[in-house]
Amino acid sequence: MDLSRALEGMTTPLVTPFDPESDEIDEAALEDVVDHLLENGIDGLFPCGTTGEFASLTPDERTRVTELVVKHADGEVPVLAGAAATTVPETLTAIEDAADVGADAAAIVPPYFHTANAPAGNRQFFESVADESPLPLVLYNIPTCTGLRIEPETLESIATRENVIGIKDSSGDLEYFRTAVRRTPEEFLVLQGYDALLVPALRMGGDGGVNALSHAAPTLFGELLEAADEERGLILQDAVSTLFEPCNEYGFAPVTKAALVHRGVIPSDSVRPPLVSVPADGREAIETATDDLLETASRSDHA
Amino acid sequence: MDLSRALEGMTTPLVTPFDPESDEIDEAALEDVVDHLLENGIDGLFPCGTTGEFASLTPDERTRVTELVVKHADGEVPVLAGAAATTVPETLTAIEDAADVGADAAAIVPPYFHTANAPAGNRQFFESVADESPLPLVLYNIPTCTGLRIEPETLESIATRENVIGIKDSSGDLEYFRTAVRRTPEEFLVLQGYDALLVPALRMGGDGGVNALSHAAPTLFGELLEAADEERGLILQDAVSTLFEPCNEYGFAPVTKAALVHRGVIPSDSVRPPLVSVPADGREAIETATDDLLETASRSDHA
Amino acid sequence: MDLSRALEGMTTPLVTPFDPESDEIDEAALEDVVDHLLENGIDGLFPCGTTGEFASLTPDERTRVTELVVKHADGEVPVLAGAAATTVPETLTAIEDAADVGADAAAIVPPYFHTANAPAGNRQFFESVADESPLPLVLYNIPTCTGLRIEPETLESIATRENVIGIKDSSGDLEYFRTAVRRTPEEFLVLQGYDALLVPALRMGGDGGVNALSHAAPTLFGELLEAADEERGLILQDAVSTLFEPCNEYGFAPVTKAALVHRGVIPSDSVRPPLVSVPADGREAIETATDDLLETASRSDHA
Amino acid sequence: MDLSRALEGMTTPLVTPFDPESDEIDEAALEDVVDHLLENGIDGLFPCGTTGEFASLTPDERTRVTELVVKHADGEVPVLAGAAATTVPETLTAIEDAADVGADAAAIVPPYFHTANAPAGNRQFFESVADESPLPLVLYNIPTCTGLRIEPETLESIATRENVIGIKDSSGDLEYFRTAVRRTPEEFLVLQGYDALLVPALRMGGDGGVNALSHAAPTLFGELLEAADEERGLILQDAVSTLFEPCNEYGFAPVTKAALVHRGVIPSDSVRPPLVSVPADGREAIETATDDLLETASRSDHA
Repeated sequence: MDLSRALEGMTTPLVTPFDPESDEIDEAALEDVVDHLLENGIDGLFPCGTTGEFASLTPDERTRVTELVVKHADGEVPVLAGAAATTVPETLTAIEDAADVGADAAAIVPPYFHTANAPAGNRQFFESVADESPLPLVLYNIPTCTGLRIEPETLESIATRENVIGIKDSSGDLEYFRTAVRRTPEEFLVLQGYDALLVPALRMGGDGGVNALSHAAPTLFGELLEAADEERGLILQDAVSTLFEPCNEYGFAPVTKAALVHRGVIPSDSVRPPLVSVPADGREAIETATDDLLETASRSDHA
Repeated sequence: MDLSRALEGMTTPLVTPFDPESDEIDEAALEDVVDHLLENGIDGLFPCGTTGEFASLTPDERTRVTELVVKHADGEVPVLAGAAATTVPETLTAIEDAADVGADAAAIVPPYFHTANAPAGNRQFFESVADESPLPLVLYNIPTCTGLRIEPETLESIATRENVIGIKDSSGDLEYFRTAVRRTPEEFLVLQGYDALLVPALRMGGDGGVNALSHAAPTLFGELLEAADEERGLILQDAVSTLFEPCNEYGFAPVTKAALVHRGVIPSDSVRPPLVSVPADGREAIETATDDLLETASRSDHA
Repeated sequence: MDLSRALEGMTTPLVTPFDPESDEIDEAALEDVVDHLLENGIDGLFPCGTTGEFASLTPDERTRVTELVVKHADGEVPVLAGAAATTVPETLTAIEDAADVGADAAAIVPPYFHTANAPAGNRQFFESVADESPLPLVLYNIPTCTGLRIEPETLESIATRENVIGIKDSSGDLEYFRTAVRRTPEEFLVLQGYDALLVPALRMGGDGGVNALSHAAPTLFGELLEAADEERGLILQDAVSTLFEPCNEYGFAPVTKAALVHRGVIPSDSVRPPLVSVPADGREAIETATDDLLETASRSDHA
Repeated sequence: MDLSRALEGMTTPLVTPFDPESDEIDEAALEDVVDHLLENGIDGLFPCGTTGEFASLTPDERTRVTELVVKHADGEVPVLAGAAATTVPETLTAIEDAADVGADAAAIVPPYFHTANAPAGNRQFFESVADESPLPLVLYNIPTCTGLRIEPETLESIATRENVIGIKDSSGDLEYFRTAVRRTPEEFLVLQGYDALLVPALRMGGDGGVNALSHAAPTLFGELLEAADEERGLILQDAVSTLFEPCNEYGFAPVTKAALVHRGVIPSDSVRPPLVSVPADGREAIETATDDLLETASRSDHA
C-alpha cells in the first residue's frame, strides 16, 4: 500500500460520530463508517479533519479516533491524520501521537486564531514543524477556517522539502489550485478538497480528491475519478455539486452526517458545539440530493 | 480589591516576552512588564489574550504565564486569565488551571476554527462552559480572529448568567458595542478592546477598557479614563489612535512589543510564528507615535 | 439662511416617491415629504442621494426632483443636491443642472463601477470636479455602494480646497469618522450619515447629521442633536438604532418609505428595480420601531 | 457572420485609448487596436466593457467608440456593445444607440450603486430591459464591480428569454460558471471573462471567452481555444495566468494598455480617473509576461 498512490485516488475526510445522549464519540458508528468506505472502494482515510470536527475533539480524543481508524482499516488503505494546532509543539505532539498509533501521514494548517502578519510567519511555522515531523506531511489550505490562505510563495518554498508531500486545497479557488500545481514539483500531490470543483481540478492537473461527500456515495466518487476527463465526469460532478450546496449553508459535518443517517450508516447526526445539526427544513434537500447521487452512479454501493 | 471595580478601569492585555535565542518565555521580562504597569496605575492584568499570543503558547506555558503574573501582581490588582480553546473540556481545563494558580476571572471566545453554523451553537458552547466554570467569565468578541462575532441575541441570553460578568469587545464596531450595553443588565461589564474607539465607547455607556497600547503609556490611559467625557479625552484618544494604526498593519503583539522595547521595558520584541517582528521600515512610525503618546500625557510614567 | 450652519443641524436625504401604477415620480408626494420635514424642523434637504434612489433616476429626473425640492423649500432651508456620476463631465453636468434649478451645494462620490486602483485616482477625480464646480461640494463616503472608502490621505488633501466644504460619512466606521474630524480643517464639516452612530459621532466632534430615518421622526432628530451630549441623547439614539436594523436588511429607501407610509405622509412605498419593497413579514418591525420613535420623542411632530 | 458562432470563439473587450495630452479618445489608436485584433484572428469585439473604462466615458463617447469599432470592423466580426447603466431607460438608450450605429448585440449588468435588496429586483430590472431591447443581450456578471453576483435563480429565469443569448462571467468562481452552464438552455452561451480560468471553463462546458489579455497575444488565445482540451491548453493557460496576476493588482485597463504599448500597438497607456497608469515598478513584470506569452504561442501575431 503506497501512500502517494492512495492519495492520488479518493480520500475521505471522516466524520466523527457522537452518541447523542452522552456526547461521547460513538466508536462503533465510526467503525461502521470505515467499513462502509472500504467496502466501496475509498483509497485513503483522513480522520480529524474539518469534517471530523477536530477542533471539537480533545487531543486524547483525536488520538483515539486516529487509532480506531488505523486499526479498523487494518492496512487496507493509508491513514492521513489531522494534526492541526496553533503552536509548533502541539502540532508536533499531534503528529507524534498519530505516528504512535500507526498513521501514515499527517495534515497540518497554518495557525488560525491570530494569523500570520506576513507570509514569512507561516513559512517559519511550517518549517519548524517539518524539521521535526516523524511523518510525511500534507499541507491543508482552508482560508474560511484559518482566516488566510497559504500564499503561493510559501507553498512553493515548502513544497520542495522531502517530507512535505502534498497539499489539500479547500479554498474553492481554482486559480489558486492551478497555481499550486504549477509552482510545485511534479511529484508533489495537489489534492482537491472542495467537492464542487473536483472534476475541473482533475482536468487542471490535480492528483486526487479529499472530499467529505464521498461518505454519501463512495462508489460514485471512484467512478468520477476514472471518468474525470470524459463527458460522464461532468454528470457525476453536477450530482455532487447539488449535494454540496447545503454544505455551504449548514457546514460539512452536519450535512455529511445527515446524509450518512439517511443512508443508514450511522444512527445519529449529532454534532458538538459550535455546530448544530441540520434543521428539519433543511433535511429534505440533503436526502433528495443523496438519493440522486446514488441513482446517478453506474454501480451501487455495497450495503 | 474588587474584580468588577477593577475592570471598570484600565486592564492591560499583557504581551508574553520571549527570549530571542531560545524562543522560551522571558520570565524576567514579563515581571518587568507587570512592574511597569502596576507602578503606573493599571487596574487589571489580562495575561494570555490575543496580544499575549496565547495561541502560540502551550497549555502549560499559559498556566505558567498566568501564575507568574498572579504572583508578581501579588494581590495589588485582579488578574483576568485568557482561557480560549475550541472545545468545552479544554476551555474548562484552562479556566481550572488559571483558578489553581490564583486568577480572579477568565476570558473565553467562541470556537474559532470551524465556526458556529447557527448562533445556537455558540450559545450552547458558552452555556456548557459557564455551567462548570470555577471562575467568573468575561466573553471576548474578536471576529477578526474567531471568524464570527458573538451575536447580540447570544450575548443577551448569556449575559444574565450570574458567573458571566462582562464582555470585551474588540470588533471595532461601535454600533455593536452600544448594542451590547443596551441589551445587557446594568451590572454586566461592557469593555472596549479596540483602542481607537475607547473614548467613544466610554461616552456610549462603556464600563472600562482592555487595551494593548496601555503598555506603551499606562499613565496616559489612566488619565484618558478620567477625562473621557471632556474635550481633553479627544486629544488623548487621538494620540492613542495614531499608535493604533500600525497595529492594524503589523498586529498587536509585534507593535506593542516594539513600543515596549523602545521604552526600555523589555529587551526584545521577539514573537513566535505565525507572527514576525515589525520590519525595520515600520519601526520609526511606532517609536514616534509612542513618544508623542508620552508627551501628550499630563503626567509621566514612573521610570 | 446659511448653508454651513444648516448642515450643522439635521439634513434629510430625501426619498423619491413613485406612483405605483405608472412608476413615475409622484411629485405631490415628494412635496408632502418636504412639507412634513420643514414643519418639523429639519435644517437641510438632500435630494438625489442613496435614499433618494438617485441611481434609479435619469439625469432629467434628478434635475426635476432637485428643482421641485428647491421650489417647495422656498428658501426656508438649504438644498444639497446629489450629483453622483462615474465620469467627471457627467458629475459636472449634474452639479450645473442642480445649480441652475437653485441648489445650494452638491454631494459627490468617488467613481463606483470600476474603482480607483490607487488613491491618487480618486484624488484626481475629485480635483477635476472641484476645479470646475459652480457649487460648494460635500464629499460622500459610502463604501458599501462605491466599493472603496475615500482614503484619509485623499480626504486630507481635498478638504483644504475652498469649495469642498464637508463630508458625509456613511461608512459605519467611527474610527474613520474621527480621523476625518482630526485630519481636516476646523471649518470643514464632518457629517454622520450612519444613523446608528449619530450620537457617538456628535460626541467625537461631528458637526451634524444627514440621516434617512429623520423622515420617520424629524422632531426627535432635532431633539437628539440638542441632547447629544446628555444622557437623554443615548435614549434617543437607541430608539433610532432599533429602526436602523431593518435598514441593514432591506435597504434605506424601502424602509424609509415604509415608515412614511405608516405615518401617512406618502401613499405608496413603491421603489424602482433593483430594489423591491419591504416584504409583508418585515413591515411589523418597522412600524413598531417607528411608533416607538414617536413615543420616545418629547415633542410630537406636527400632523 | 453569425453572432452566436463568433461568441463561441474569442471576443476581445476592447481598451479605449486616450490621448495623454487632451485626455480625449485617441480614435486612430482605437482603430489600430481593432486592426491588430482582426489581423490576428479575434472572433468578436466588445467595446465599452470594464476594460474599455465604460464608466469613465460619457454616453456620447460610448456611442462614438462603438460606432468607430463597427465601422472599422466592417462586418468582418460581430460587435457586442457595452450598454451598462443603473436605470432601465438609460440602459435602453445605450442599447438603442448601439443598435443605431450597427452593433450586433449589447452587454448589460445589474444596477451597481445601490444594489438589489432581493434577487427579484435584479430579475425585474433585466426583464424590463429585455422587454424593450432592439438587440440581443448578453448578461455580464462581475460582482467585484457591481457589488453582487447575478444569482443562479435569476440567471435561470432570464436565460429562457429569446433575446437574452448568453452570459459573460467574470466572477473568477468556477463553481458559479459551471452552475451557469448547468442551469441554462443548451443554446445559451456561457462565456468566460476571467482570463486565468479560461481553459477550465472551456473544459467544463463553457462556450467561449471574452478576455482582456487577448489584446496582448490574440493568436495565442485563438490557439488556446483550439487546444483547450489538450495538454497544450494548460501551457497556454499558465502563460496567460502569469500576465493576469498584475491585472488583479493594477486593474485590467491599465495592464492591458501597458501590454499594448509594449507591443507597439498604441502610443500611450493613459487612463482616466479613478484609474491611474501602472507605476514604473510594476511595468517590468507586465512586459516580461507579455514577451513570454508571445514566445509560448506556436504562431506569431501579424505585425
